[in-house]
Amino acid sequence: MNEDAQKLAAAQAAVDYIKDGMVVGLGTGSTAAKMVDLVGARVKDGLDIVAVPTSEATAAQAKGLGIKVVGLDEVSVIDLTIDGTDEVDPEMRLIKGGGGAHLREKIVASLSDQLIIIAENKKMVDTLGAFKLPVEVVPFAAGALLPKMEALGSEPAIRQKDGDNFYTDEGNLIIDCAFGAIDNPEELAITLSTMAGVVEHGLFINFADMVLVGTETGVKKFEA
Amino acid sequence: MNEDAQKLAAAQAAVDYIKDGMVVGLGTGSTAAKMVDLVGARVKDGLDIVAVPTSEATAAQAKGLGIKVVGLDEVSVIDLTIDGTDEVDPEMRLIKGGGGAHLREKIVASLSDQLIIIAENKKMVDTLGAFKLPVEVVPFAAGALLPKMEALGSEPAIRQKDGDNFYTDEGNLIIDCAFGAIDNPEELAITLSTMAGVVEHGLFINFADMVLVGTETGVKKFEA
Repeated sequence: MNEDAQKLAAAQAAVDYIKDGMVVGLGTGSTAAKMVDLVGARVKDGLDIVAVPTSEATAAQAKGLGIKVVGLDEVSVIDLTIDGTDEVDPEMRLIKGGGGAHLREKIVASLSDQLIIIAENKKMVDTLGAFKLPVEVVPFAAGALLPKMEALGSEPAIRQKDGDNFYTDEGNLIIDCAFGAIDNPEELAITLSTMAGVVEHGLFINFADMVLVGTETGVKKFEA
Repeated sequence: MNEDAQKLAAAQAAVDYIKDGMVVGLGTGSTAAKMVDLVGARVKDGLDIVAVPTSEATAAQAKGLGIKVVGLDEVSVIDLTIDGTDEVDPEMRLIKGGGGAHLREKIVASLSDQLIIIAENKKMVDTLGAFKLPVEVVPFAAGALLPKMEALGSEPAIRQKDGDNFYTDEGNLIIDCAFGAIDNPEELAITLSTMAGVVEHGLFINFADMVLVGTETGVKKFEA
């Protein structure tokens, strides 16, 4: 299977876990978008769910497919969230945020009974960090935080889009931190979380309950 | 001295530490406002400094007094920040954020060589927590975070102003968490910092280098 087919296969395997009556968190990104399409198809076939999207983009896509979309304040629990990732290591630790939606993704994931991560084969890595770690920061602090990110051992850069700073759905900036390899993700996660001006970082540790990876020969399943 | 005179005495003692050529962080709140007035008076007398304010309100006050105001991105270091507090305990741990500016206050403090805290006597407490701990959260997550704050042992409420939700300078909401007493501030600080949707909390631990407290008999000085 090529990468697109791998993403689709992983998405299909995840969507099979959705049952009638569930509140479902919908991730953001190219793999998640395939999953949302498949959820839309099942809803057309009669599946009865409500969905909590993790971005304005996913909300628009879901609504367009006829999926009932609600806000976080309208549900007491999220049964299952399905989302993509930028990297996943053998301990199911993730780097997310390439699409700039990791803040809402982490909020929704942290409120979910179960998080299923879907990915194509190349997202599986031995060590996190080849993908630049996205760190969402308040604009007021962005410039001052760049040298702090350097001091942590990364090459940091404020994310650009169309020649201008990229702003998240929450109006924050993203510093993409090129670490190369992250030796101790747990320690880095706490360091970043406790840094004034950092709203959220893209390390998801102890979040994924299941990882479904599309490979050339089929879908591999990993469980916590 | 009454409370107002205590605040003023502490502010005066702190302002004496400002020297020509310094970059000075200016706090927010009723005590800090007295300090900013005193800084303005010294600038009128020829003191040559630039100031980094911690809120739009403080920026406006400083500009009105003729103090040269710059943004965080215009300075490489802040020599000294002077700010108020809502509570301070014997280990110089603080609860701040009653004025809703603790995010920028913490950012500026974390970039300062030295932080001097000024307060009147009643702000000194044996145990933090009688003052409701302000936790700044992204609006998307606010409703979902209320039960999480309850689970931590507090009575949480989204801060109101003029009958509506109060929004910070960054466009976030504040959950005021009534703990009564906080047994382990260090542990609570990490728990809150690593919680998805929490932008910043009002616990300042290992931030203050000096605390100047106005009392009925004069200014008491505490140093780290």
